[in-house]
Amino acid sequence: MKCGAGIDTRDIEEMYINIDPIQAGGRLTADAMKAAIAFGDGYSVCDNCLKPFRLDYIKKPPIAQFHADLAAWLNMDAVRVVPGARRGFQAVASTYVGKGDPVIVTALAHYTEFMAVEAAGGIPLEIPKDAKNHITPDAAAEKIEAVIREHSRTPPLLFVDHVDYQFGNVHDVAGIAKVAHQYDIPVLINGAYSVGIMPVDGRALGADFVVGSGHKSMAAPAPSGLIATTNEHAKEVFRTTEAKGDVTGRTFGIKEVEMMGCTLMGVTVVGMMASFPHVRERVKNWESEVAYSQAVTDALLSIDGTKVLSDYPRRHTLTRVDTRGSFDLVAREHKKRGYFLSSELKRRGITGIIPGSTRIWKYNTFGLTAKQIRHVGEAFVEVARESGLNII
Amino acid sequence: MKCGAGIDTRDIEEMYINIDPIQAGGRLTADAMKAAIAFGDGYSVCDNCLKPFRLDYIKKPPIAQFHADLAAWLNMDAVRVVPGARRGFQAVASTYVGKGDPVIVTALAHYTEFMAVEAAGGIPLEIPKDAKNHITPDAAAEKIEAVIREHSRTPPLLFVDHVDYQFGNVHDVAGIAKVAHQYDIPVLINGAYSVGIMPVDGRALGADFVVGSGHKSMAAPAPSGLIATTNEHAKEVFRTTEAKGDVTGRTFGIKEVEMMGCTLMGVTVVGMMASFPHVRERVKNWESEVAYSQAVTDALLSIDGTKVLSDYPRRHTLTRVDTRGSFDLVAREHKKRGYFLSSELKRRGITGIIPGSTRIWKYNTFGLTAKQIRHVGEAFVEVARESGLNII
Repeated sequence: MKCGAGIDTRDIEEMYINIDPIQAGGRLTADAMKAAIAFGDGYSVCDNCLKPFRLDYIKKPPIAQFHADLAAWLNMDAVRVVPGARRGFQAVASTYVGKGDPVIVTALAHYTEFMAVEAAGGIPLEIPKDAKNHITPDAAAEKIEAVIREHSRTPPLLFVDHVDYQFGNVHDVAGIAKVAHQYDIPVLINGAYSVGIMPVDGRALGADFVVGSGHKSMAAPAPSGLIATTNEHAKEVFRTTEAKGDVTGRTFGIKEVEMMGCTLMGVTVVGMMASFPHVRERVKNWESEVAYSQAVTDALLSIDGTKVLSDYPRRHTLTRVDTRGSFDLVAREHKKRGYFLSSELKRRGITGIIPGSTRIWKYNTFGLTAKQIRHVGEAFVEVARESGLNII
Repeated sequence: MKCGAGIDTRDIEEMYINIDPIQAGGRLTADAMKAAIAFGDGYSVCDNCLKPFRLDYIKKPPIAQFHADLAAWLNMDAVRVVPGARRGFQAVASTYVGKGDPVIVTALAHYTEFMAVEAAGGIPLEIPKDAKNHITPDAAAEKIEAVIREHSRTPPLLFVDHVDYQFGNVHDVAGIAKVAHQYDIPVLINGAYSVGIMPVDGRALGADFVVGSGHKSMAAPAPSGLIATTNEHAKEVFRTTEAKGDVTGRTFGIKEVEMMGCTLMGVTVVGMMASFPHVRERVKNWESEVAYSQAVTDALLSIDGTKVLSDYPRRHTLTRVDTRGSFDLVAREHKKRGYFLSSELKRRGITGIIPGSTRIWKYNTFGLTAKQIRHVGEAFVEVARESGLNII
């Protein structure tokens, strides 16, 4: 089936249980899909744009209220929606980072944080991870000290991932923020894997900025995301334009420079809004999501030779495993090579693992039902047993 | 009807003929709506992401081919999709503009060009418009000379709008580019009101950059747009990351800094792609679109006291009129005041004029059928006649 010339209709979510590591939290809710149809046109939200003519002030649809609700929900003072988490990183880096400034990131930082620092002319410098793949407050303190010594200036910004994309480990970002604040370094918490799937209290974490991703974890169309901040920093990162036409004398009202004026329109913002009531509810079920993730992880661990590289017991739904001692042994002899695993899973209605992977790979069980979780766990064990691996 | 808690379903395009100045070129095609449903999830396009792991290389859906097609269509060397035209301006300004650099814009420049220059630390300086509301090559030359004299340096960039948002006038951007190139100033042509609705040949215009808007003129969901450039400038504005983790030694492949890595995902890019075959066809009907616009304009001019502020005869579908000598005279006596006009039009199934406007306002007839055009023209005349205005 086609949804345009040469474009096959995608039916993965309809046909399979999808455990893709990056797709789990971004699946649209039914309400977001309805919004995508009703507000597909980009300027659809601008029908009732009144003074002061800025998108986040629009009351119908209730975009202004949505911004206030997001801020309250994250326990922060001010929120703007942005075209993806990376555009939130960019806005903050562009505001605070000057040419040649050292900026603290971590050994588990997402690459888009590097991009934002690089675009601003800064030098990204990593806090090392420890043997357990955690970024600790102590390591943060050591790195900050070392950077100040070497660069003779205090980094203007520290990025830390609430939950990292590599292991799905939950880091002590509150402890790291406390350390950073001793040096007056503002802290940006990358909540791409937390905001929208687990409870996040920005103030309790000591965040100066919380950045979230709509399409990764808030069941919203792409590109969407948010940046939440304090009143203090809102004045800086959401500063309004000072530009004035030298010939015309034009000024541009309260348009915000780092937001490039009006923010998300159409399907992206209304999709986020439509999903938000569901998102706000679902984060309350986080413990159950983690328990489900644990169940699948335990099923995998029952296959002799399998290791879990993420924290154990699991505290998140994104998990990294090492099956070099199990599925990869099968792959070496199998006529389909590494593809046997994704192929066997697909036969059982499961997709989302990179085809060919049998060594180190990730999965994300977020949003699956109890029945689906049981099926996924059993499917892994069944494939292992049929492939001659020991079940312990 | 609701499409989410508190969100009324929008039905303007279903219920009315919409002549809103900014919405006309962005209405989704049926194929883009289908794409919005099938590819609503943000990472939907990433199912088949293979090495080198960059979104614009994905072959299924045919995103890579779409990029090549866009470049060929605009007669430019390289294209990237971006979250709206403004993000294209930002990428170019961030690449070329340093702190304190004078940057040439025009008296008719869209405010987002000012935002992009301001974010990069530059000083936007306007080429004046002439008495006919045109930006001329001569005025560009004078401004460039004056700026070089005053700032003792050559501006690193010149922005000019192919069609301006205020009058819908088509400017001699080829002539302006020729002048700018005599000073080795690269030229960015803002095609937000041209790319996707009228033929655009970037090379013939002498563009170093052509920026287009998906949600304004390419029948695509927001935020979407494109930046097209030459091989020479592609190396600069699409430069790949040089970042390297100081602890981990990580590098980030061919991710492009100004693009913040991977570009548009999900509904935005697939929506653009689904509409593209229709967009490519519709620009060929531009002369007919202009004739339709002329017909509505002439109907308005048949109302005594009405003036057209845009070029006459019309060369675009976006038109600015002055009805202070006609509809505004009625408004002064009418119990609904200025709202009588939008209200009378709405009764006739027409929407898109700012409610309350009877002085200077804009409309855009793009995409209407012959029958709709006739109805809109007749409706204006009928409202005028019933309000006691003279028809000439």
